[in-house]
Amino acid sequence: MTMPALREDALAAAAAVDERRLWDRLAAMAQIGAIPGQGVNRPALSPEDIEARALLLSWADSLGLSASVDAIGNLFLRREGLDPSAPPVMTGSHMDTQPKGGRFDGIYGVVAGLEALQAMDAAGVRTRAPVEVVAWTNEEGGRFPPCTMGSMVFAGACRVEDFVDVRDNAGIRLGDALAATLAATPDTARRPAGGPVAAYVEAHIEQGPLLEAAGLQVGAVTGVQGMRWFNVEVSGESAHAGTAPVSLRRDALREAVAMIAALRELTDDPSDITRFTVGRMLVTPNSPNSVPSHVLFSVDIRHPDRATIARLGDAVEPTCRAQARACTVTVTPTLHDDPTTFDPSVVDLVESAAGALGLPTMRLPSGASHDAMYLARMCPTGMVFVPCERGISHNEAENAKPSDLAAGARVLAATLAGLANR
Amino acid sequence: MTMPALREDALAAAAAVDERRLWDRLAAMAQIGAIPGQGVNRPALSPEDIEARALLLSWADSLGLSASVDAIGNLFLRREGLDPSAPPVMTGSHMDTQPKGGRFDGIYGVVAGLEALQAMDAAGVRTRAPVEVVAWTNEEGGRFPPCTMGSMVFAGACRVEDFVDVRDNAGIRLGDALAATLAATPDTARRPAGGPVAAYVEAHIEQGPLLEAAGLQVGAVTGVQGMRWFNVEVSGESAHAGTAPVSLRRDALREAVAMIAALRELTDDPSDITRFTVGRMLVTPNSPNSVPSHVLFSVDIRHPDRATIARLGDAVEPTCRAQARACTVTVTPTLHDDPTTFDPSVVDLVESAAGALGLPTMRLPSGASHDAMYLARMCPTGMVFVPCERGISHNEAENAKPSDLAAGARVLAATLAGLANR
Repeated sequence: MTMPALREDALAAAAAVDERRLWDRLAAMAQIGAIPGQGVNRPALSPEDIEARALLLSWADSLGLSASVDAIGNLFLRREGLDPSAPPVMTGSHMDTQPKGGRFDGIYGVVAGLEALQAMDAAGVRTRAPVEVVAWTNEEGGRFPPCTMGSMVFAGACRVEDFVDVRDNAGIRLGDALAATLAATPDTARRPAGGPVAAYVEAHIEQGPLLEAAGLQVGAVTGVQGMRWFNVEVSGESAHAGTAPVSLRRDALREAVAMIAALRELTDDPSDITRFTVGRMLVTPNSPNSVPSHVLFSVDIRHPDRATIARLGDAVEPTCRAQARACTVTVTPTLHDDPTTFDPSVVDLVESAAGALGLPTMRLPSGASHDAMYLARMCPTGMVFVPCERGISHNEAENAKPSDLAAGARVLAATLAGLANR
Repeated sequence: MTMPALREDALAAAAAVDERRLWDRLAAMAQIGAIPGQGVNRPALSPEDIEARALLLSWADSLGLSASVDAIGNLFLRREGLDPSAPPVMTGSHMDTQPKGGRFDGIYGVVAGLEALQAMDAAGVRTRAPVEVVAWTNEEGGRFPPCTMGSMVFAGACRVEDFVDVRDNAGIRLGDALAATLAATPDTARRPAGGPVAAYVEAHIEQGPLLEAAGLQVGAVTGVQGMRWFNVEVSGESAHAGTAPVSLRRDALREAVAMIAALRELTDDPSDITRFTVGRMLVTPNSPNSVPSHVLFSVDIRHPDRATIARLGDAVEPTCRAQARACTVTVTPTLHDDPTTFDPSVVDLVESAAGALGLPTMRLPSGASHDAMYLARMCPTGMVFVPCERGISHNEAENAKPSDLAAGARVLAATLAGLANR
């Protein structure tokens, strides 16, 4: 796909973006599930999610957008095109948060999409193709794993039935929470999942430090790095910390520590591109005077290069095995996402929209996963990033500037208008 | 203190020990908190602890023993002496277990003490001094660190108030769990903590391999090795596992792993005498795709030599500090026990009781801590060890033979009668 230069009306739409309105809507959404420290806890398919959906629908209604919802709860707000039969251009993100999440992760992409449509109205811009804002269900996976569930179902990678029996920590079935969420908006039309989709562009905070460090307000995202997840389970034997000679122990923690050190060496990267994280560790019996019999730890490795992430991921099990002495080790892959490369023409269009708006920009990969990963399997896809303070995200302290958020919405509006008027 | 030779009635009490009754009581206690693999999980001050206390009290009641409890929950069962004003001879141990503990650690010393008193009854033995069986609260420290809490308070080494705000892994305060435990036995008389105590003898499984290797049924314990405990808390900052560059992270788990590796080097001992254990580790937020912001881990170091344990313990904080990079570290000492040497006259009496009963014996040190350490600060103290299979303890597979357990109870009965009739 090649893109024409941006037309005047795309830039007019961008100019009509209202920084204050965008900020006020984000602030209103931040009230729903607010937690101390300016954070938000709005789990997928929860009463808070239902409240956020109702607020979004009320805004859509006042803009004359038509709403529909699919079987996994993805919520679509449509601005009609001159050719209603043309596949829509889509934008959006998610409204659910991490348990201790912030005010911008996800919700910004939804509210910025709405702002882009309202700006088109204000500028009198008509597009050939319809434009739809989507709030994808359960991107975080914080309540019901896995993450990016709504976009996965939309893209046909999974079915709703695959997830209905997933339970949250309180034992609630996803199927029941989903039914309650759908029942809360009985007037919203039902639509089937899936395309066709003409193109997809998602706005999001970077969740990393690159744009802030470069002093830029927007970035054109080139793709999402690949990710491999593993659970490593080390099994030894519990023993008395005072009596068991160290030489005779089968100490699961001692060997787990050696494995983590070896994995760190494996993933050592002077260029600082490789991401290696051991975020979760469970020790059994977890008592100061018992030699640990069992340790489970998680491994999360990410890299934008397909060959590198394949090599590193494939080396996890042999690296752990090489450190096992008296214990046994089991390495279980739990997630495997190859790197996603966004459509160059969409990346070009985001970059040229920023340029036309006088916003210096850079190309950068996404460190985090996004719904755009699954849309990229269906249609030309790209993302617009805006900086967040110190790159902090998945944290109540997540913060972003109104002017940067507005800049991102302007680039989004111009890009959407450009795509919808191909 | 010098001991007279054992009188006939001490040997008569020993002969009245009932192997089957002892075993059946241990089996009944093993039902309370039973876990798969013949193990027991009976945390201090838990509902299971309360149930074990009730069972012990019912047995004591049927034997006509008078029960009392002190402010930390130590439970005393008294067999009156001919001279009720004489300081009591005490025996006992603890009823709490490690999270994956066995059927004998602790509870054997309590049940063997009860068996000794019942054997004295059966043999018509009267003693000048009263004899008391004590179930010391929270010897393991598995739920609420530190260990040997009840005997520490009894010996005046700490106060109850020092521990009431300690919380378990579920966030429950010790003070609340203690109040619930005391409230469950409202009819048990309250008594002040502390002595005077005439002497103390504790029966326990060895938890090490020496008696089994020597083919002996009983051992006379000469003392307990020194022990230092610490909590090490590493504080960094949570961040997104996909976006935060590794070089900029303040990863608490990464630095904790480096500290543990350095502590392992510090405590490396080709002679295999030093015991070094990291048994407990808590990671926050403990999510696969969040960089850990906080790690707490325990350090347990033991050695029989006073100078060595002092040197190693004093090096823990500087060793951890030397590995801190982007995180801060706090090292809190939670226990400091110098090596204990038991009273030679009590060790002699245990040895001669075994000899008089035709049981070959050996002298050996204790690798594990015991409540006897704190009693040794108050009165002449000793211990009787019996073998356990392969020295395995703090493990569901902990095992011991009925005949060995009975042999230990016989030596205990004779020793107690001897001490109480000085």
